[in-house]
Parts: sequence; C-alpha cells; structure tokens
Amino acid sequence: MLVLITYDVNTETSAGRKRLRKVAKKCVDHGQRVQNSVFECLLNASQYAVLKAELTALIDPALDSLRFYQLGNNYQTKVEHVGLHPEFAQDSVLIF
Amino acid sequence: MLVLITYDVNTETSAGRKRLRKVAKKCVDHGQRVQNSVFECLLNASQYAVLKAELTALIDPALDSLRFYQLGNNYQTKVEHVGLHPEFAQDSVLIF
Repeated sequence: MLVLITYDVNTETSAGRKRLRKVAKKCVDHGQRVQNSVFECLLNASQYAVLKAELTALIDPALDSLRFYQLGNNYQTKVEHVGLHPEFAQDSVLIF
Repeated sequence: MLVLITYDVNTETSAGRKRLRKVAKKCVDHGQRVQNSVFECLLNASQYAVLKAELTALIDPALDSLRFYQLGNNYQTKVEHVGLHPEFAQDSVLIF
C-alpha cells in the first residue's frame, strides 16, 4: 500500500536540525520524496509498522510531529500534482 | 470527501514569501492546518475543483508545487498522528 508521510520538525536548535536530518534520511531510505517534508512509501503492513516506530523514536514528540496517511493500493487516481516536479529519480511511487 | 493538500513554495525571494502567505491563507480559509504546509479540507467535488484552480493560480509553477490527495469519506482509519499537536482549533477534520 502507499503510505504518505509528512513531518514537521522544529529546527530552532542544532538538536532539532539533527532530528530533521535523521527523519529525512530515514524517509529517503524508504520512499520517494515528493516535497520537502512529504514522502510516499510503498510498504506492506509490517514494513509500515517498523518505519512508523523508527520515525517515532527519532522525533521529539513535544516539538515535532509526524502524520501517516494510508492511501491503499489504488492510489493512482487519488493523487494530483501541480507545479515544480521534485528533482529526484522517479519510480512507480511518484505520481504526477 | 477529505482532501489533503501539501505545498512547497520557494521562499528565497520576497515574491516567494508573498506567494507562500497567499497559499497558506487560502488553505486556512478552506480547511484545517495539521502541519506547517499540510492541510486537510472537507470538500465536495465542486469545491475541490475551485480550490485547486485558485491555489494553482497563486503559485509559480516553475518554483513551487502543490499536491492533492483524495482520501474519500472513510478517512478516519487512514490517518495517524505522532507527536506535537498543531495549535489550532480542532474540528471534525482534524484526526489524531
């Protein structure tokens, strides 16, 4: 299934910027960056559970947030993009 | 239906920062801010078409991007939130 992951990480401190880098790195390793803090990841239920736990461990829950949207398997018709395309290698996860 | 709207606006110039303010204002007027550049909007098909056109007119498509995800009417089980809750008035659109 396609899981959309969005995050807000507070970068007012160096610790925050470090958390941001770690969260971004983890997402890059598991999906397709479609905007600066928006990723689309093709995951099964088990992979989703693991990634959610790993990301949860990286953030400061008092300062940062994560949101996960399960878009299912028939997501092609549910996503629309307008404007600049991200400068990343495209694969089947990236929908324009 | 619930429509998730995410945006990246290039804020390197004052014109970009002005576009960002306009895009954010438009989204605030039509939905619930759940992260800094992530909004959830309850819209019918007609409202969705209008909002998409209005937002498209506000951005610079060579520098900025918008993404729209249609989450349908049964979205309650598809969304998960971790960490800091946004400091906005909650309504039925906001799912935690």
